[in-house]
Amino acid sequence: MDARVDRLQRISSSDPGVIALGGGLPAAETFPAFGEPDAASLQYDWPEGREKLRAFVAARLRARGAAIGADDVLITAGAQQAIAIAAELAAQERVGVDEESYPAALDRFRSLGRPPTAGPAPVRYVMPALSNPHGRALDERARAMLLASGIGLIEDDAYAELRFDGRVPAPLVAGARDRVWHVGTLSKTLCPGLRVGWLVPPAAMRPRALELKRDLDLMSNGVGQALAERFLDEHDWDARLAGLRRFYAARAERMMRALRRFLPAWRFEEPAGGFSIWLEAPEPDASDVALLACAVEHGVSFDPGRLFRPSEASQPLALRVCFSGEDRLEEGIRRLAAAWDAFRARPATLAT
Amino acid sequence: MDARVDRLQRISSSDPGVIALGGGLPAAETFPAFGEPDAASLQYDWPEGREKLRAFVAARLRARGAAIGADDVLITAGAQQAIAIAAELAAQERVGVDEESYPAALDRFRSLGRPPTAGPAPVRYVMPALSNPHGRALDERARAMLLASGIGLIEDDAYAELRFDGRVPAPLVAGARDRVWHVGTLSKTLCPGLRVGWLVPPAAMRPRALELKRDLDLMSNGVGQALAERFLDEHDWDARLAGLRRFYAARAERMMRALRRFLPAWRFEEPAGGFSIWLEAPEPDASDVALLACAVEHGVSFDPGRLFRPSEASQPLALRVCFSGEDRLEEGIRRLAAAWDAFRARPATLAT
Repeated sequence: MDARVDRLQRISSSDPGVIALGGGLPAAETFPAFGEPDAASLQYDWPEGREKLRAFVAARLRARGAAIGADDVLITAGAQQAIAIAAELAAQERVGVDEESYPAALDRFRSLGRPPTAGPAPVRYVMPALSNPHGRALDERARAMLLASGIGLIEDDAYAELRFDGRVPAPLVAGARDRVWHVGTLSKTLCPGLRVGWLVPPAAMRPRALELKRDLDLMSNGVGQALAERFLDEHDWDARLAGLRRFYAARAERMMRALRRFLPAWRFEEPAGGFSIWLEAPEPDASDVALLACAVEHGVSFDPGRLFRPSEASQPLALRVCFSGEDRLEEGIRRLAAAWDAFRARPATLAT
Repeated sequence: MDARVDRLQRISSSDPGVIALGGGLPAAETFPAFGEPDAASLQYDWPEGREKLRAFVAARLRARGAAIGADDVLITAGAQQAIAIAAELAAQERVGVDEESYPAALDRFRSLGRPPTAGPAPVRYVMPALSNPHGRALDERARAMLLASGIGLIEDDAYAELRFDGRVPAPLVAGARDRVWHVGTLSKTLCPGLRVGWLVPPAAMRPRALELKRDLDLMSNGVGQALAERFLDEHDWDARLAGLRRFYAARAERMMRALRRFLPAWRFEEPAGGFSIWLEAPEPDASDVALLACAVEHGVSFDPGRLFRPSEASQPLALRVCFSGEDRLEEGIRRLAAAWDAFRARPATLAT
């Protein structure tokens, strides 16, 4: 899109005195009358998304120490699209990641031809406030090293508000505005089906990020944005977050108790928040996918460890179990332990 | 995503007897109670989208002669995302397009490093049922040549149901299932804010298309899909389309009358449907963007011709005017004529 054309069309569309014969919008009077979302949410919109929602995101970031305004924020189709945009614009050759990281981010790095690596790289994808799958917060020293490194950072903040202790740290973007791509979402704290996430690109990259957003899907869905805006208007967000933390912390506690009881030889660290626990097997050489097949026969499923690894290695055997979306946690872990016993007893458990 | 893992997780998620400790879903009991969309639409879903909506798309395509089932359809964030997926997976080096074509598709081809060309190419992006910006239907001979060419085809069917004569042609995918990427949308016929479009990839490419959809945004928003499904359930879609055709045909007629009256020296062809008219200026050498700046001063805007050209050339001077989203058509064209007169009278109208 020509920058002059974009400017002229924005000027003219904001001025009711200008008759807009461009843009190719369908006639709003032909739209259905849905009860909930407002009428504007049904029409085409600018790629950056609705202003009130952007202002909410910016205000939350300012409260954590980052000098961000509504105009710095780009509403995306969930955090995943924000990661995809950042990866396409920021990454070169390879993307640095933790030893274990978020699978769908790793997959996009791969399909872009910029495969993830646990080694050094000019751009790094991190979840400093709370990591997936480990549920781990970055310590001060590691955080300072990241900020001092001078490399590009894709900061995935998806679980930041769901630290059980409620101590939401300053985002990396507060310390390195010019080279952090800050990513957030309402998927974990409101619901995923709205597909409302956001990206704060480095200021110099905002025009290209907006163009790429437009290239990818023109704009984020208006209905989800409108429902989110209304919800945020009518509810106390901090009270909601406090309730969610209690809810998920209690589930994490139950899962840890079940793990200690039914799988005492497996190792895990207590999650500081989020949705999941990373489990490491006492016998490292078996296949995570073969174990999953056996587990499903025993009525339980999990996420095999290879999905989280830049190398896609099955060994050492590990897996992610989530306490977030399932209430039958004790029975689930009991079945997992039964599957593990059956799996180990098999004569030939192929390590593939 | 490992294919075996995907299969195992789909099996286990469809079986209520399996306790799902994978997936990382938030707890549905924490979701807000929105009035309209159903509860399932708020949760994470598979990347292909909701089955009822896919079945609707497939049934409409079967009625036009294409052997498509619900499982062949992938719900996307509007037609734009379907084009972006097809372009990323199908295109090599360059993408063939018409002399004038849909700007946001051209932009994605460019940002993927596969720039559009009006010359020959191994993959071609076409709008055979009804083109944008010309509102032209492909004739039988050109259609047969395309099908006989053996090249890959991205078929953008966005305006097919909005041909004024109501004769919706067989899609290209009916004639070359193995190399057509069929793209459609509800944006023009229901509303854009839901972001509901679809892609039917060649059967052999479906797994990669699903993976890329997941890489880009995990899934399309559930709320828009749920609202669309409910609307399609409760309304007569063909009656709606007939009404939309009458509505837009009447607007096209009014715009053509105004053009003949106020801009009699400009050339255009009568659109066979869709939203727009392509206007060619009697004096070809001026800048379309300079004319747009002048037009905005006169209280009217349009889409400059360069946006539609693979070369981005400003000359010969042409522009797109849309009759779809604006009711002040006569006054708009009158202002455009006044702007044109003023523009020509300027001593130095730079051709940039």
